[in-house]
Amino acid sequence: MAHTPASHRDDALTVEARSDAQPGGWARLRRYLPILRWLPAYRREHLPGDFIAGMVLGVMAVPQSMAYALLANLPPQVGLYATLAPLLVYAVFGTSRTLSIGPVALVSLLTGTMIAQLAPPQSAQAMQLALLAALVVGVAQVALGAMRMGFVVNFLSHPVLSGFTSAAAVVIALSQVKNLFGIELPGSASPLADLGHVIARLPETNWVSLGMGVAAIVVIIFFHRRLGRALVHLGVSEFVAAQVARSGGLVVVLVGTLLTWLLRLDQTAQLRTVGHVPAGLPPFTMPVFDPSSLGAMAPALVMLVVIGYVESVSIAKSFASRRREKVDADQELIALGMADIAASFTGGSPVSGSFSRSAVNFASGAATQLSSVFAAAVIAVALIFFTPMFYFLPETVLAASIVAAVLNLPDFETARQAWRYSKADLLTLVITLVGVLFVGVESGLLIGVASSLAVHLWVTSRPHVTIIGRVEDTETYKSVKRHKVKTCPHVTALRIDESLYFATAKVLEDTLIGVAVDNPALKYIVLDCSAVNRIDLSALTTLETVDNELRTMGVTLVLSAVKGPIHDSLLRAGFVARFGQDRIYLSTHEAMKALECT
Amino acid sequence: MAHTPASHRDDALTVEARSDAQPGGWARLRRYLPILRWLPAYRREHLPGDFIAGMVLGVMAVPQSMAYALLANLPPQVGLYATLAPLLVYAVFGTSRTLSIGPVALVSLLTGTMIAQLAPPQSAQAMQLALLAALVVGVAQVALGAMRMGFVVNFLSHPVLSGFTSAAAVVIALSQVKNLFGIELPGSASPLADLGHVIARLPETNWVSLGMGVAAIVVIIFFHRRLGRALVHLGVSEFVAAQVARSGGLVVVLVGTLLTWLLRLDQTAQLRTVGHVPAGLPPFTMPVFDPSSLGAMAPALVMLVVIGYVESVSIAKSFASRRREKVDADQELIALGMADIAASFTGGSPVSGSFSRSAVNFASGAATQLSSVFAAAVIAVALIFFTPMFYFLPETVLAASIVAAVLNLPDFETARQAWRYSKADLLTLVITLVGVLFVGVESGLLIGVASSLAVHLWVTSRPHVTIIGRVEDTETYKSVKRHKVKTCPHVTALRIDESLYFATAKVLEDTLIGVAVDNPALKYIVLDCSAVNRIDLSALTTLETVDNELRTMGVTLVLSAVKGPIHDSLLRAGFVARFGQDRIYLSTHEAMKALECT
Repeated sequence: MAHTPASHRDDALTVEARSDAQPGGWARLRRYLPILRWLPAYRREHLPGDFIAGMVLGVMAVPQSMAYALLANLPPQVGLYATLAPLLVYAVFGTSRTLSIGPVALVSLLTGTMIAQLAPPQSAQAMQLALLAALVVGVAQVALGAMRMGFVVNFLSHPVLSGFTSAAAVVIALSQVKNLFGIELPGSASPLADLGHVIARLPETNWVSLGMGVAAIVVIIFFHRRLGRALVHLGVSEFVAAQVARSGGLVVVLVGTLLTWLLRLDQTAQLRTVGHVPAGLPPFTMPVFDPSSLGAMAPALVMLVVIGYVESVSIAKSFASRRREKVDADQELIALGMADIAASFTGGSPVSGSFSRSAVNFASGAATQLSSVFAAAVIAVALIFFTPMFYFLPETVLAASIVAAVLNLPDFETARQAWRYSKADLLTLVITLVGVLFVGVESGLLIGVASSLAVHLWVTSRPHVTIIGRVEDTETYKSVKRHKVKTCPHVTALRIDESLYFATAKVLEDTLIGVAVDNPALKYIVLDCSAVNRIDLSALTTLETVDNELRTMGVTLVLSAVKGPIHDSLLRAGFVARFGQDRIYLSTHEAMKALECT
Repeated sequence: MAHTPASHRDDALTVEARSDAQPGGWARLRRYLPILRWLPAYRREHLPGDFIAGMVLGVMAVPQSMAYALLANLPPQVGLYATLAPLLVYAVFGTSRTLSIGPVALVSLLTGTMIAQLAPPQSAQAMQLALLAALVVGVAQVALGAMRMGFVVNFLSHPVLSGFTSAAAVVIALSQVKNLFGIELPGSASPLADLGHVIARLPETNWVSLGMGVAAIVVIIFFHRRLGRALVHLGVSEFVAAQVARSGGLVVVLVGTLLTWLLRLDQTAQLRTVGHVPAGLPPFTMPVFDPSSLGAMAPALVMLVVIGYVESVSIAKSFASRRREKVDADQELIALGMADIAASFTGGSPVSGSFSRSAVNFASGAATQLSSVFAAAVIAVALIFFTPMFYFLPETVLAASIVAAVLNLPDFETARQAWRYSKADLLTLVITLVGVLFVGVESGLLIGVASSLAVHLWVTSRPHVTIIGRVEDTETYKSVKRHKVKTCPHVTALRIDESLYFATAKVLEDTLIGVAVDNPALKYIVLDCSAVNRIDLSALTTLETVDNELRTMGVTLVLSAVKGPIHDSLLRAGFVARFGQDRIYLSTHEAMKALECT
């Protein structure tokens, strides 16, 4: 609407936050600290489910988070650090009962490409940049959440997200090829360039690395797609079968580590392993403010804020709806931001909600975020006691678990739907996909968002316009081309199917003048405004100009079905007084009755 | 609409180009060469009007075009060159009978700021850049016109144009201050920086220059605002009075040149004059292709293409409508582009339609573009015989004529209307104004366009939603908050006043679920789609999800008043089959009748 925001929602429905109408101090505290809602009401019968889910989640998170740290060009322990504190912090601030927070594929990819431009992989400088990024992203998310700005993610359309996810899966998989082949690359370039380097150095392939990696991928996929169902067939309970099906990643880590240790593959076959991981709980770290790096990271940080949140909140929503629970979109922004801030002070990196770990948590029976607390305990134990074991964990196995994980990401279904339903949506999907693959992860996403907005504006700037007539015996007016309707020679009723704003002002002018020119017998034009949701100043100016032109042509313009809020602002601008209230009708039928055409 | 462009205009009105339905070779030639339409049908009685108008126009164009050349950081003769050939070319290709083409304020300002970043003012290099710019701008305009892309200018909103014009007037006036004060500046910076330098060097003011400049401004304004009316009072004919009123610019040029020559002010008072202007017709020039300059000029060139066209076509339209004539927007793009190309091969610079010269042409009785041919002849005569006279033409007088011309540009009326009607429009006006003044002429305009698009998207992303009910004894359904209407407890009819696309999908979801949650007795929700002009894939996905959620809550969703084109694509996507045609009604009234709520 062209009028001020305050009045423009005057009779809008207030759907949300009705219960928070008068938040006192305690109520407000409970709103911002959801743990105060669920912990005091904790029911003991939830404990076994939360405990088991926490254990499973923790055991799964250890290798996964190390793998994602490598993807983010960071040392493996950073992944563990980025899981521990964020899990605990989200348990305090989050509104989802089963969301599991930590390093995830897309966010790690964004972090990794951002860092690669500024620092050597896995260097101390890279770690500093990750801390700074987590802090900035976290503060931005908390601020957006506090300002209830969660809606900005609405501008990420379905096709853009779909194209981004599919392309990111390819980029992530490509980025792991060098690890699978055990080929060392000079510096870090783009994933596509990396692939080129790998192909150029194929003779240097470490066959042990490649064999173990491929075997690991096969095992994980076999566990995931076949073993679970087979066990159910053999009479194993659904619950146990599901746990086993998801344990492929853990199995390959254990077997790979054991093989490497027993056969000393790191020395006998030059197999690259994780190597020394410092023992002990996450350190307290202080992000160093560095304006020049911040400037260079700015676009990536914006993406991290948005993508991290979109991923997290959509996962939270999808699991909540399965149990008829609700998540608060703005509080989720705050919770994720606090988790990011926690990561930045404990040696971590930017985080988001993990789909695979949340699914495991959900399937293993988590009822509250207490499971996250148990999972954090598992990671703490691993950090204190088991880091020496990681020495022999082969990087190719971690790469395999990343590749196996992203195989599920590509989204063909949305592309198929877009193909059938809307070529405009397909276009933005393809633009995003191609942009991410060939221009870059961040730029590609930005290009995608811009293209989706451009396509929408383009479509709305070419509105559907039709002459309408009365559907027999009703007060309904429909297109003369589609329905058997009644019309009159001295009146033409027109419906323009778009808001009247600067981009449609010319269509309005051309249409009205055109109709008048083409019908010399015409006395009246009824402009049905039922589909007009906004009239901006450009269109209002055009409307007055056209009205004057029509008058000199002996044609009277009449408006019908003008919406309340628009009528209000037309009144305020003095348009109604100049135009005449008697030329504005409640409905097209009333206008047609008054003009004796019914 | 979310469906393909082909079907989406299926029952749209074809308002334009009906006469060109079957263009054969000759018809097509006539379309692209409008001179073939008017010249063979030329009526002799138009000759006196065209001749007089051409003389007046030519005499006015000589000093004006030299002044705008200086504004464009080019030597004065370039202004004359940029007028001669373009006038002739436009006469061949243009569809306006009275538009006068040549160097104008805004385009010269854009050209000048662009050139200043790459070459010293008035240098040979600056002239080369102007040629290249004219060529690129011309080719782009011709291409856009041939592709019938004239509509892109629809995305320039009224408030953005208003803000740009007002700010540009200030920038142009500031850029002339140094010439009025006769102060020589080192290099060329931004107009604001120039102003700072002038203030710093105020003691160097050339008082003769300042005095002559201020006097010239006063004379021009006096002629324009007072003298015409006074003469009419004294019984002089309207026509003659109007010619005299517009001749202030010529008078100050003649008097200033004469004074300077007689008193040798260029030597006795160091008054800066135009100096040596090469005699003879425009040279044939070859623009030199230079990729690095082209890259640097790219944003400015885009602005020149758009602004040049917008200014030209709006002036053409405004004069055409006064005589009930028509201009063809796409052909105008081609004509302007050809004029630009002509300028680039005859030593000129980018051109546009001039408001003041077109007004003079119109007022002096021009009936066809033959007046432009006569005007071109005047300029040719001036170039061949009178260049020595320009030697003593003081620059301060040219600066005065520019300042006097742009005094009319600032547009307070649009700002006032926006203030009353739409704060959103006011915001984009102010953003453009501030952007042009403080960021830069091109960037400011780009910022303005982006802000107008962002404001529109922002407004459409927060749609007005209302519960509607039946207005007594009619089939009209209106907001329960504004009208006395009938409703039922088991049915809620909702109207969402916006297209359903990615940015409104969440509002749709929240609204429908919210209504269902808040009304336990609810059995049906009728979604009135009369204001829904597009449903994109994101919104369609949301609609299906919400429908499923509502079903599990025991609420049936029903759609009413779905527009034909949208229904078509829903059908094609299989949505209608899944959703059920029996849940889609022609009108809200039919839905309410079927649900027993009338």
